[in-house]
Amino acid sequence: MGKLLRINTKEKTFGFNDVPDTYAGLGGRALTSKMILDEVPATCHPLGKFNKLVFAPGILSGSPAADSGRLSAGSKSPLTGGIKESNAGGLVSQKLARLGISALVLEDKPASDGYSLIVINTDGIKILPADDLVGKGNYAVMEQLWKTYGRNVGVLSIGQAGEQCLKGASINQADMNGKPGRAHGRGGLGAVMGSKKIKAIVVDDNGAQRVHIQDPEAFKTANKRWVEMLKAHAVTGAGLPAFGTAVLVNLINEAGALPTKNFRTGRFDHAQDISGETMADLIEKRGGITTEACHPGCVIKCSNVYHDKAGKYLTAGFEYETIWAFGANTMIKTLDDIAMMDRLCDDFGLDTIEMGATIGVAMEGGMIPWGDAKAAIDLLSKVGAYAPEGKIIGNGAAFTGEALGVDRVPVVKRQALPAYDPRSCKGVGVTFATTPMGADHTAGYGVTANILSVGGTVDPLGKEGNIELSQGLQIATAAIDAAGLCLFVAFAVLDNEDGLPTIVQMINAQHGLSLTPDDVIALGKSILNNELEFNRRAGFTKVDDQLPEMFLESFPPHNTTWDFTTDELARTLSF
Amino acid sequence: MGKLLRINTKEKTFGFNDVPDTYAGLGGRALTSKMILDEVPATCHPLGKFNKLVFAPGILSGSPAADSGRLSAGSKSPLTGGIKESNAGGLVSQKLARLGISALVLEDKPASDGYSLIVINTDGIKILPADDLVGKGNYAVMEQLWKTYGRNVGVLSIGQAGEQCLKGASINQADMNGKPGRAHGRGGLGAVMGSKKIKAIVVDDNGAQRVHIQDPEAFKTANKRWVEMLKAHAVTGAGLPAFGTAVLVNLINEAGALPTKNFRTGRFDHAQDISGETMADLIEKRGGITTEACHPGCVIKCSNVYHDKAGKYLTAGFEYETIWAFGANTMIKTLDDIAMMDRLCDDFGLDTIEMGATIGVAMEGGMIPWGDAKAAIDLLSKVGAYAPEGKIIGNGAAFTGEALGVDRVPVVKRQALPAYDPRSCKGVGVTFATTPMGADHTAGYGVTANILSVGGTVDPLGKEGNIELSQGLQIATAAIDAAGLCLFVAFAVLDNEDGLPTIVQMINAQHGLSLTPDDVIALGKSILNNELEFNRRAGFTKVDDQLPEMFLESFPPHNTTWDFTTDELARTLSF
Repeated sequence: MGKLLRINTKEKTFGFNDVPDTYAGLGGRALTSKMILDEVPATCHPLGKFNKLVFAPGILSGSPAADSGRLSAGSKSPLTGGIKESNAGGLVSQKLARLGISALVLEDKPASDGYSLIVINTDGIKILPADDLVGKGNYAVMEQLWKTYGRNVGVLSIGQAGEQCLKGASINQADMNGKPGRAHGRGGLGAVMGSKKIKAIVVDDNGAQRVHIQDPEAFKTANKRWVEMLKAHAVTGAGLPAFGTAVLVNLINEAGALPTKNFRTGRFDHAQDISGETMADLIEKRGGITTEACHPGCVIKCSNVYHDKAGKYLTAGFEYETIWAFGANTMIKTLDDIAMMDRLCDDFGLDTIEMGATIGVAMEGGMIPWGDAKAAIDLLSKVGAYAPEGKIIGNGAAFTGEALGVDRVPVVKRQALPAYDPRSCKGVGVTFATTPMGADHTAGYGVTANILSVGGTVDPLGKEGNIELSQGLQIATAAIDAAGLCLFVAFAVLDNEDGLPTIVQMINAQHGLSLTPDDVIALGKSILNNELEFNRRAGFTKVDDQLPEMFLESFPPHNTTWDFTTDELARTLSF
Repeated sequence: MGKLLRINTKEKTFGFNDVPDTYAGLGGRALTSKMILDEVPATCHPLGKFNKLVFAPGILSGSPAADSGRLSAGSKSPLTGGIKESNAGGLVSQKLARLGISALVLEDKPASDGYSLIVINTDGIKILPADDLVGKGNYAVMEQLWKTYGRNVGVLSIGQAGEQCLKGASINQADMNGKPGRAHGRGGLGAVMGSKKIKAIVVDDNGAQRVHIQDPEAFKTANKRWVEMLKAHAVTGAGLPAFGTAVLVNLINEAGALPTKNFRTGRFDHAQDISGETMADLIEKRGGITTEACHPGCVIKCSNVYHDKAGKYLTAGFEYETIWAFGANTMIKTLDDIAMMDRLCDDFGLDTIEMGATIGVAMEGGMIPWGDAKAAIDLLSKVGAYAPEGKIIGNGAAFTGEALGVDRVPVVKRQALPAYDPRSCKGVGVTFATTPMGADHTAGYGVTANILSVGGTVDPLGKEGNIELSQGLQIATAAIDAAGLCLFVAFAVLDNEDGLPTIVQMINAQHGLSLTPDDVIALGKSILNNELEFNRRAGFTKVDDQLPEMFLESFPPHNTTWDFTTDELARTLSF
């Protein structure tokens, strides 16, 4: 059992505490959500002194278990006003685990304007002035920190967006190449870090011991089966490694669920131009990397490095949702422009999904023309320039809709809908509406059975079975997020009855436990119930669990509408 | 019984309907709130086609009853997301009543960008293109409309803020001199009018009959007593006519409840410079008007016309809350600068309370310096220039706080607190927290018993009696707003046991009814219950009925804090 590392950002002090009984055995999202529920008043100002920012490695993080290096960040969200867990790859999760830190908690808020840098290593904790980093983007910050503290240290940092406490602000992590290609993107957690005046956190496990495994043999056996399972599945073993998540552009477009022109139609005429296949071709031609892990120990390797026309590094971790957001959603059809916007978001520290939806709303409101890549890039650049336009768009789609008087704004709980139209992919629509996170595909990825025929099939256009689909996935996802596993393992787990037992065996072998698959399901439910309880205390009701009225519009090509009632949706997370 | 005039802003059509039984006998706030509850889906987008904007004269409006010419505007508020009633003086209420119109309802929403002008007179209704008015401020609009349609027509119009659908947008009314000195200020109703592309409404009762009085003798007797009562009370008969509402600057400062520097302290060193006494001196010296009615038939005459140093008209309807908002709250101490900001707000169509609080938040966030009048005027001017900064501040204090990452933002239900600190005037604090309107002093003006010794005395610094004080005032106020009476009649009514019976006698005499004072109290309760029910359907909970955490700070000079619990506050409107 590790320790809780609490840092008081006002007093610039820290302390290591034993993990109390109430948090024992929890990790990742299970721990962040429990701590936020227990320690943060639900009605507090998200940028005030009562909010906390918690980073927790997963239950399996730090171990050799494949794909177990995701880090959970939890807080009261400045974007949604509810609880938030946002997880990312990178290097920090495993390093914190090896340093024996179950959770890193940032508390209170300084009165003054000075920023700090936190350095965590085997010598202890240092809280240093970060004046030389202020005003810099994540690229420059990470380059400087790797230079100072060594290549391969884990880095969490905020860019100009987090400094401005914008609701679209992400917390970025150094990826395997020291670039800010990985992000705790959703929910504006970068603003919480900014409010606490923490510019960056360096985590260095040099000299730390390996994570102790209670039953090494059992662990090794289970992990071997686990790796085979991931490599054998068509999605995790072939599709994702070859084309990255952008393999979905053509699939979702074909299904008529690719939201185009701010969710007006489900097919984009230029889908092929921005597809995973086109992207992979360009990457290979230009000398980038098509198949890259987002954290050490990942065997799926769906990340990438994307070069520009001149063959020079442009961006990394270039994802389907980003390509959709800045592409089909805004009618921009040039992959290089979309990649530039991905880069700007990584640099300023902005959630690409939120920003793409925001650019769509800005176009809807006439701020810039539809499909105008140059105008979109210029507008996005205003965030890095600390300009008034940046303070509008950097606060996200709902905020920008309010600034411009636009009533077609695709958000739930003020968080922008990702790249799947809820009218033509209703399983994920139910998730968008009901997850305590605000619209979030990763909270219960109904695309699986709706479109990919993974884990069975459920009609994406009808209502039947979609509430049950979302419910099951939301429970499973919460548990996966607690384990520190990449969500994409779900593809293999859903199609393999040995999947969940294998995960349980790894957890048992590492921690000397005797959990059953039922215990893991119960964990998933308890995580969701903690999150729902926080949101209730924050004033959320079933009214917040619905889609905005723009989804009553008929949606081509299937001419479907959103037709779940509030009461039907309320069943999703009642257990 | 009049008719309902419904105008479809998309189709540019209209229809007169009989008042259905469910709305029979209602007027003013009673009618607008009932219609919004019954006809507007509580979860709809406030700027979408499902929202409606209802204007309703009071039950006594159009009659000779003194001070009965207030017009209620009702809608789902773009600012609060809840129900809103905002009433104002001017000429429209009495003219609508004389034209036999119980409510004017704007419905649906046009797809195109063209604005319309609605002209209502005894010939019928015209819906005309308003291209020549677009982009103009309320001063120019009203001047042009009086020129075209005759002096003394009633005018409702929006300025640049309403056109931009900003949450701080007011709907302004031509005052007795054809200037936009009267406003339906709170809750952003100008944005609703803007979303429906109605630039202005002209109401001309030339040729209309007088409002029919069922028992003229009884009415005359009651109204005579009513006028005497208003003239005899120290506040309505002397203080308000002499100094306007600005008489409160010194009184509230003396009480230590004048929120200074964004609610940091309760006394402003320069209160005397911006006091009602100073204002009255300047007005007299410069040839303005100290004592002016806000609508025909008013005998209190607390309005005014304020001239600049050169003796030229600068602004009108220059109120205490405005002077506080742009004065003590922002540390600006020059009355001429404050008057200029009042003028800009009237011209652009902005709520002065919301804007003053917003300037305070902008100063808190470092956007402009404390006390810098020139910077504040420049910033306010950005709204009229359709500039990005204007789209931030024009959306109000909560929005600006979010744009700037400020956590000291004095709002309830996202509406800015007016000019009375809730920690040193707890009766009005209870109202701020609990009224379905969002922070609003006019919803239950506890300043009466807390500070002015009107209607008894209740300690403003303690908790005892303040929930009951607010409850009684909120019920009475709802009924007064339904009658179309000016809220200031409450001063006289609270101190005179003959007050309420006299109002009831006027209503009975006009409408041939036999109501009792108990019926009027029941009406007040039913209005509040309708409003609370709308807000519940919109997702509001008791969490929304509290002050933000900045009011936990100790407040000089009395060093009081806000100490009501959520559950205590929940008692206020439970009946």
